[in-house]
Amino acid sequence: MGLVIPFEEARDPSESLKPLLDLVTEDMGGINRIILDKAISDVELIPELAHHLIDSGGKRLRPMLAIASAKLCDYRGSGHIRTAAAVEFMHTATLLHDDVVDESGLRRGKQTARMIWGNQASVLVGDFLLGQAFRMLVDVGSLPVLKIMSNAAAIIAEGEVMQLAAAKNTATTEDEYLSIINAKTAALFSAAAEVGAAIAERPAAEQTALKSYGKNLGLAFQLVDDALDYSGDSARLGKAIGDDFREGKITLPVILSFRRGSEAERKFWKQTIVDGSIEDGDLEHAVSLMKRHKAVEATLERARSYGGIARDALAIIPDCEQKFAMEQVITFCVHRTH
Amino acid sequence: MGLVIPFEEARDPSESLKPLLDLVTEDMGGINRIILDKAISDVELIPELAHHLIDSGGKRLRPMLAIASAKLCDYRGSGHIRTAAAVEFMHTATLLHDDVVDESGLRRGKQTARMIWGNQASVLVGDFLLGQAFRMLVDVGSLPVLKIMSNAAAIIAEGEVMQLAAAKNTATTEDEYLSIINAKTAALFSAAAEVGAAIAERPAAEQTALKSYGKNLGLAFQLVDDALDYSGDSARLGKAIGDDFREGKITLPVILSFRRGSEAERKFWKQTIVDGSIEDGDLEHAVSLMKRHKAVEATLERARSYGGIARDALAIIPDCEQKFAMEQVITFCVHRTH
Repeated sequence: MGLVIPFEEARDPSESLKPLLDLVTEDMGGINRIILDKAISDVELIPELAHHLIDSGGKRLRPMLAIASAKLCDYRGSGHIRTAAAVEFMHTATLLHDDVVDESGLRRGKQTARMIWGNQASVLVGDFLLGQAFRMLVDVGSLPVLKIMSNAAAIIAEGEVMQLAAAKNTATTEDEYLSIINAKTAALFSAAAEVGAAIAERPAAEQTALKSYGKNLGLAFQLVDDALDYSGDSARLGKAIGDDFREGKITLPVILSFRRGSEAERKFWKQTIVDGSIEDGDLEHAVSLMKRHKAVEATLERARSYGGIARDALAIIPDCEQKFAMEQVITFCVHRTH
Repeated sequence: MGLVIPFEEARDPSESLKPLLDLVTEDMGGINRIILDKAISDVELIPELAHHLIDSGGKRLRPMLAIASAKLCDYRGSGHIRTAAAVEFMHTATLLHDDVVDESGLRRGKQTARMIWGNQASVLVGDFLLGQAFRMLVDVGSLPVLKIMSNAAAIIAEGEVMQLAAAKNTATTEDEYLSIINAKTAALFSAAAEVGAAIAERPAAEQTALKSYGKNLGLAFQLVDDALDYSGDSARLGKAIGDDFREGKITLPVILSFRRGSEAERKFWKQTIVDGSIEDGDLEHAVSLMKRHKAVEATLERARSYGGIARDALAIIPDCEQKFAMEQVITFCVHRTH
């Protein structure tokens, strides 16, 4: 893979986000202004609820990728700003609907919108933000960009339905799980990286490279997320450890522990994840089983492997500041602790 | 208004749908094929749930309007078929989310999707259908059509949030209520009628005429819907009389009865609609209050008035078979009994 991580970086992975932040900082100002502007509505509830999420300290990784990709492709227009804002709106809409579907109580350390304004408002404001995302993309006026983004919207929803159908099913294979996160997470990372090339009208090979980079980065990002839910630091993570466990979510650490476990252990997973009968000490037991079978370790190993694919996808692109920043994002995604 | 309704038509309003049905019958075959095709997914739950609604005997009024409008504008391509299918998908997505938000049990005489597959699946399949709608529109490739449809998507969601905020508020004025139905219902009728002119690249005056026709037709349609909920025939309507009442929905018949009523009557409306404390005989009492204040009658009168505006909007367009069919739709919407 040729992935060399200096010791300092391994200690503080957010250092590896710096080149990206430096690259996009000016444009992100514009994006933030558009995001605030497009979340406005005469219907008070809309900006109120939208801001709750928008201001909640998300990393804005997806719009940053769109900007970085446009810069890498030497795009000279201004359409990338609205495109990146649309990427963030699509992401925010997904989060709102996700929290309703998962019945989540916390996101990024704050109460979820559904706990404050209810499921109904969360569903409808999500719909509004998705509509606004498409409005912005139509304003930009690039059909190739619209194609990438509408594909992503359908695929993300498809992935969420897939996950719903697989929920509580401990027989889910690693392959099936990969299809799910490919759709529900990697599709938007992929679209974010690809739109930069599309808007700059770059050759197909470059566009495909960025698409592949985004997809594999997204897979790595999600797998690390899954691992952190059983091993992370809840204060830095902004969400409680064991959320996935309590919600009965099948993620890769569970899939691997189930497959590698004894009959008695499988019974434990069924009782907790499938039947939702969780008692004091069960989360600790789950974590100990994962340790025994090196399930979190294996999940992170997979993440590193996808990170490597993402890196190689960029290899055809000549070295430059933008490419370096996008490579460093891989390091961040793979080694982050929150 | 110059709205002359032959006696026979007044007796069977669905007769007035015939010219439209004749006009669009061939294209509707293509639309139905696309709808079936685009509801397909490897994720089994998606076609299952989507078909539940798609096959449930909706009138497909909105896609028919899109087709009629394209024909009126002498459009010679084939993009109107996919555009009309996208209109129906957007409508279906809205219905799925609506039923979740309203906690509805029945739609068109059948159990709602949420009763069978749950709220979660309804939210996510709705998202998928909306994504598919935009995919189809991108395939058609007309930016003006995409602009109209993405505007509609955002406005519809805005209207739904507005309705949620106004829910249980008996102080809602008629004006406020009009803003709500303008957004949540009329916007899609308006878009459906307008896209035909947009795809045919007709002059702005014609496009605006069709947009105004669709908007006012949509207002009339919704007001008649509101009236039927307190006066219709539940077997033909495919939903229970008094659904709006039981769900505590503020509609025009309630707004008018509340405003025209005595203090004691207003107390009754607050107790039932706002507090949701509904006892045996309350629906009958509500209907009797509406009779006393001619609230249903007044609602239908408003509907006729918007129907008249829709008719006048078409006046600048030379007489032709298509125009006649679209005029007859107004008669249907205003005089329908289900």
